[in-house]
Amino acid sequence: MIRISIDAMGGDHGPSVVIPALAAVATRRSDIRFIIFGRDEAVRPELEKHPRLAEISEFFHAEISVRMDDKPSQALRHGRWKSSMWRAIEAVKTGQADACVSAGNTGALMAMSKFCLRTMATIDRPAIAAIWPTTRGESVVLDVGATIGADAHQLIDFAILGTGMARALFDIERPTVGLLNVGVEEVKGQEEVKEAGQLLREVNLASMNYQGFVEGDDIGRGTVDVVVTEGFAGNIALKTAEGTARQIAGYLRSAMSRTLMAKIGYFFAKAAFDSLREKMDVRRANGGVFLGLNGIVVKSHGGADQDGFAAAIEMAYDMVRNRLLDRIEADFDLFHARNPLTSVRRSATADEQE
Amino acid sequence: MIRISIDAMGGDHGPSVVIPALAAVATRRSDIRFIIFGRDEAVRPELEKHPRLAEISEFFHAEISVRMDDKPSQALRHGRWKSSMWRAIEAVKTGQADACVSAGNTGALMAMSKFCLRTMATIDRPAIAAIWPTTRGESVVLDVGATIGADAHQLIDFAILGTGMARALFDIERPTVGLLNVGVEEVKGQEEVKEAGQLLREVNLASMNYQGFVEGDDIGRGTVDVVVTEGFAGNIALKTAEGTARQIAGYLRSAMSRTLMAKIGYFFAKAAFDSLREKMDVRRANGGVFLGLNGIVVKSHGGADQDGFAAAIEMAYDMVRNRLLDRIEADFDLFHARNPLTSVRRSATADEQE
Repeated sequence: MIRISIDAMGGDHGPSVVIPALAAVATRRSDIRFIIFGRDEAVRPELEKHPRLAEISEFFHAEISVRMDDKPSQALRHGRWKSSMWRAIEAVKTGQADACVSAGNTGALMAMSKFCLRTMATIDRPAIAAIWPTTRGESVVLDVGATIGADAHQLIDFAILGTGMARALFDIERPTVGLLNVGVEEVKGQEEVKEAGQLLREVNLASMNYQGFVEGDDIGRGTVDVVVTEGFAGNIALKTAEGTARQIAGYLRSAMSRTLMAKIGYFFAKAAFDSLREKMDVRRANGGVFLGLNGIVVKSHGGADQDGFAAAIEMAYDMVRNRLLDRIEADFDLFHARNPLTSVRRSATADEQE
Repeated sequence: MIRISIDAMGGDHGPSVVIPALAAVATRRSDIRFIIFGRDEAVRPELEKHPRLAEISEFFHAEISVRMDDKPSQALRHGRWKSSMWRAIEAVKTGQADACVSAGNTGALMAMSKFCLRTMATIDRPAIAAIWPTTRGESVVLDVGATIGADAHQLIDFAILGTGMARALFDIERPTVGLLNVGVEEVKGQEEVKEAGQLLREVNLASMNYQGFVEGDDIGRGTVDVVVTEGFAGNIALKTAEGTARQIAGYLRSAMSRTLMAKIGYFFAKAAFDSLREKMDVRRANGGVFLGLNGIVVKSHGGADQDGFAAAIEMAYDMVRNRLLDRIEADFDLFHARNPLTSVRRSATADEQE
């Protein structure tokens, strides 16, 4: 049985999208159970439309809904303990749920997740991982914006986290990993990226096939299964790719409506265009996964439709089923066993922080 | 008369693409003149095919050709004084040419340009600016990879350089400018980006309409005319966009050949697809411009075809005609007049470096 806690009030559409998405997933996965949090008057009417879903779900009224434009600090102040977002995360902490899914605002969800679940003992910072559609399939890209900047050891943490996710989601024994860097030759790359690369090569983990540096255009090419970078560059890469996809979709629309011939062509090729649109739809490449916390939290795109939200749930389901957290912990143990120096450094840093 | 010096040996195709491109531009611009450098046996046969071009050009044999995979240090060691690349740049320094165009390797071209032309006295570092096709037209994005990292003052330098380029190329009196940042709310952006934003707002230049922060997806949207960022994030954004465009082109090709209906559709809409392909072709969005040097150097894409190389020349032509360097110098004077503190700081730093 896999139990997913749901913040039903998140996203641009709230329960009207979230609840039908749960119902859809429930028909496909017989061993899934939901714990749903949200405002009674908004969620109940939707739930009543899906009696089969209601049967396999528990619903709890939550007073407060975090707004999409709340600042993380506001959300924490007003929504801790009482909001649907907080309570969905808390269900993971208490062990009632195996993972949490919310389409609510990223900053608030990360702040609450960190506060409630805490960062894993072995690492400094969590990361947000994105699933990136590529010509060869899908890759994991992280960090896409949890924090700005990362030193070499944090980059290695991200590499181990991302590898665990690729193993859990893509069913690859030894995912290929690359560090995002720039290729212009007179610039030699950020110092921390170079240092991280050297360490990864030296440690040579059994679970990770480190391939070296990759560039921006390697992401979409699917050159590696896991692309590792710090949050500033990662967020800009992700948003730039989304923007480019939207821009080209716009070109395509206008090209296909400009002349009569083009319109006729569009008519014949409509099915092909529809499948293309699906591939290019940024809302379908859905769900940032928060990695490095003591629990799995999936952030669905705020604008996700029913299919998009369902995809985020399926991702959470797969990560639980494939024991993501156990894999990640095992990899960290292995890494620190091979690289005792890091562990010393790490505990020293941890002491300082206390 | 506008005189452009040409490194005929650069790029994947060398003179066989470069020379026909010059010939094509010459038919469109009656007031253009070329000074061409390259190996005699490679360039002359091409030039002989274009007598009109030969008439308006001077050709000089250059012993050495910088290879596409030469490291900048190698290129400088072997190619200084004697390579076609160096001599094309030098023609700008000596005043024989108004601008230089090369499709040679970026690292070598930047190293030689810096060495030969020197960085402008008022700034710390040059930047590479890209012309980015957007839904609204075109924008200038810089730095896309000259150097990694930039402090607030260097970002402001980039903003002034980029504004000058947008004024010269797009014929806009007061281009809109944005600083590239991340939107995730709990991270407040890099300190240097915030500081640069505050300074730009305070100084409020007449030539620049500073709009605040923009995100990755704003670039393709054309939210601002000039997007300012440091070279690491900028290079990754550029390459990621190129990769995404190529990826979608691949999807499109395979979607249009999968079914008979799609093939029929493609047949009718072929003209529309051709115009779309042109829009999506990364080689056409051609030419990184080196800004911040005492001279204009345009880097054409190494894989550029004849049209691509011609576009790079036209860009150099436009920047010369619209007096790019004069505009930039005037803007820096204005900026430093309004912000005397910066000038003091800047000269202090310059003294230290000597």
